[in-house]
Amino acid sequence: MAKLIFTLTLILFFISNTNIIAQSEQNYKTVNYKTTAEKIVREALVNKNGYNWLKEFTEIGPRLSGSENSIKAIHWAENKMKALGFNNVRLQPVMVPHWIRGKSEEVTIISPGEINEKTLSALALGGSIGTQEDGITANVIMLNDINELDSFKDKLKGKIVYFDSPLDEGLLSTFQGYGRAVGKRVFGAIDAAKYGAVGVMIRSITTRYDNVPHTGVMLYNDTIPKIPGVALGYQDSDYLKNLLQKYPDLKINMKLNCKTLPDAKSYNLFGELTGTEKPEEIILVGGHSDSWDVGVGAHDDGAGCIQSIEALNLLKELGIKPKRTIRCVLFINEENGSMGSKEYAKYADSSGENHIAAIESDAGGFNPREFDVSSDSATLEKIQSWIPILKSANILAVEKGGSGADISRIKNAKALIGLRVEQQRYFDLHHSPNDVFKEINARELELGSSAIAILAYLLSEEGL
Amino acid sequence: MAKLIFTLTLILFFISNTNIIAQSEQNYKTVNYKTTAEKIVREALVNKNGYNWLKEFTEIGPRLSGSENSIKAIHWAENKMKALGFNNVRLQPVMVPHWIRGKSEEVTIISPGEINEKTLSALALGGSIGTQEDGITANVIMLNDINELDSFKDKLKGKIVYFDSPLDEGLLSTFQGYGRAVGKRVFGAIDAAKYGAVGVMIRSITTRYDNVPHTGVMLYNDTIPKIPGVALGYQDSDYLKNLLQKYPDLKINMKLNCKTLPDAKSYNLFGELTGTEKPEEIILVGGHSDSWDVGVGAHDDGAGCIQSIEALNLLKELGIKPKRTIRCVLFINEENGSMGSKEYAKYADSSGENHIAAIESDAGGFNPREFDVSSDSATLEKIQSWIPILKSANILAVEKGGSGADISRIKNAKALIGLRVEQQRYFDLHHSPNDVFKEINARELELGSSAIAILAYLLSEEGL
Repeated sequence: MAKLIFTLTLILFFISNTNIIAQSEQNYKTVNYKTTAEKIVREALVNKNGYNWLKEFTEIGPRLSGSENSIKAIHWAENKMKALGFNNVRLQPVMVPHWIRGKSEEVTIISPGEINEKTLSALALGGSIGTQEDGITANVIMLNDINELDSFKDKLKGKIVYFDSPLDEGLLSTFQGYGRAVGKRVFGAIDAAKYGAVGVMIRSITTRYDNVPHTGVMLYNDTIPKIPGVALGYQDSDYLKNLLQKYPDLKINMKLNCKTLPDAKSYNLFGELTGTEKPEEIILVGGHSDSWDVGVGAHDDGAGCIQSIEALNLLKELGIKPKRTIRCVLFINEENGSMGSKEYAKYADSSGENHIAAIESDAGGFNPREFDVSSDSATLEKIQSWIPILKSANILAVEKGGSGADISRIKNAKALIGLRVEQQRYFDLHHSPNDVFKEINARELELGSSAIAILAYLLSEEGL
Repeated sequence: MAKLIFTLTLILFFISNTNIIAQSEQNYKTVNYKTTAEKIVREALVNKNGYNWLKEFTEIGPRLSGSENSIKAIHWAENKMKALGFNNVRLQPVMVPHWIRGKSEEVTIISPGEINEKTLSALALGGSIGTQEDGITANVIMLNDINELDSFKDKLKGKIVYFDSPLDEGLLSTFQGYGRAVGKRVFGAIDAAKYGAVGVMIRSITTRYDNVPHTGVMLYNDTIPKIPGVALGYQDSDYLKNLLQKYPDLKINMKLNCKTLPDAKSYNLFGELTGTEKPEEIILVGGHSDSWDVGVGAHDDGAGCIQSIEALNLLKELGIKPKRTIRCVLFINEENGSMGSKEYAKYADSSGENHIAAIESDAGGFNPREFDVSSDSATLEKIQSWIPILKSANILAVEKGGSGADISRIKNAKALIGLRVEQQRYFDLHHSPNDVFKEINARELELGSSAIAILAYLLSEEGL
């Protein structure tokens, strides 16, 4: 018995001692990492390079896939990466949809006679077909959402369907509100055309009570007639709703000049800090370079692109040479086709590289708050153990969750990670003329760059 | 031995069983609380009462202690509390300092002859004496901060001291940056006058690169001559700094028309939801009703006042009758004397009530993020156990930390708590003409109200 106890004590001693040594080493590293993290944050906040670059990037104008601006923006970023001395800066060709708005749309209430003709604040939805020159004129049927279409199927023929339900303001998560509201924008035209409707209109999906319309992608199904779709400003949606209650027979004229041209050549853009020890192991950081054709996509996703470039540069400025390769990728065509994401995923499958992790920033350039991680639980726990270091850049939590549309197709990565930022203001601006540079706060943007830089650095040093 | 093991097993069984029962009860409560918390958040985000009230409150104008506007604002809030049906709405008289700016200050570079006369963007510091009608004209000595005064003591006589060092942008915490920078504003005139200086100027303490000056309190010492003090816009500070390097003999003329009038009568304002079970146990929520005399104190601290009123109203709207009394207090004179805080502390000492906890919101109406708690560690842990509920209102953490200037003098409270919000934008606006209503985001403000309401409710139900 005494011998057993002695042996057990000895084992316990060794276990605890080994733990102490391991822990000391870990603490030592944590302190070092923490110091580096604070240097990264200071560098970002003081120099504000990303903020100045985003100003230049957005001055190019809106960057819809297939547009000349979009190509200009990609080359701007390519030149920036080269000037900063990134390794292996290169373009990956991608064919992308090429939709154009044409002359501004007009949506007008034209009857009954006792009401004044009024043009509503409206934007064609991305991908919509145009109308004949004098437009479509039809009565309107007002529904809340697409789930009501079936019940009204006998009344839809020849009508314009107006979907009235707004983003649910009562939810803390605006992304959840958006997710629940967006179905009518994406699928409304398909579902309504099935029953003979000739056009769809939606209340803009927004968190701000103004009259600025918010666009976004809509889809068609080749077996169902294509009908045009528009989003109305929130205030004009209220106006129309009230008017419809009084004059259910009112008519709307929709004139849309948009069309889809043949697919255009575009590019994903890569630039790297090549790993010193395991160059074939990749930590990807990225955003998407395309935006909608209104506003200049300052938050969506100019911020994510610039933060990704800046993350690499912050490490470079501090003389950090990562063990694994940190690759910045600006994806093309997230907004209306995800062709860049698909092309990259093909490349990742066949390149013989090992994608350890990918981080995407595509929720706006607001205050960073947490990273959401799609991974097994051991990996999640490992990343969570870095929270004390990530706190230097305002990150309070690492949670299981979705990552980002562009990186979601990368197979076999141990972790796909999304930067989560404060989200209360994002849908005020999203896909609208309000998404402009002056809505960016320099410190908030720079903290996002820092958070990405710190996490990419930890991933490069520690692996997963 | 077998008997011992049996007994131990039995004990373990009972312990674990009791734990399971206690835990079940706890889980049940947590779920209920979570449901209530979500209702509170929904109510706030959908109705936006606080946002609309803050608009009215700030339309009164700036609310410096002793001013007519300040009294108007207190009565506005008194009437609001009465209209909402709060209990025991009452005013507590407080004598407060009464400083007035008078005709706008003028700070002008007047020589040497080869440079053009230029009037700088400037604001007298709060509490500053005025100058004679034609102002003070003197050479300038530029120092970084007050710690350099001693080394230059022989050169200060007859000079205006300009303190150049800015808020350190490289820190994540803007409050930390402000704390480190503010000494020269508060004590600069005392420390410089010791050595014969005739005036002080500081670079505005701000996080925004613009030319808007930021004021704030300065102090005098009765044994040392009083000299006037001003803050310069950041860009004009740069201008002056560059000019001083070229023309060290340049002269400045400072004309200030401010003065301190006799103390004025003002008020703290109380309103309550009286506790149904322990009415003598108080949970205080509050902010300060005074602001500086420029801007309208939308964030500092109109937000905190309105959130405190709204917190009570949110509970009332949902039909919640708290067990303990939840008291909203709008303190007067936080900015330049804390007389309201001192008067309330005296009252708390002598009222025979038991202040369980106090929560202050005085860091702007931005996204809520955490509560900082000054308490013993068992109390801290208890409040931390509510994080899953507080998450409904965007609160991710509860940490040991400071609370708020107004509540800090309340003795014997188990917990003094500060609402911590995203702080990257606060010092862009703080104490400046930029602190206006349009800088408020409705959802962010309303989440702050919700967070306070939820925590006050938990404190009222669970005690500490």
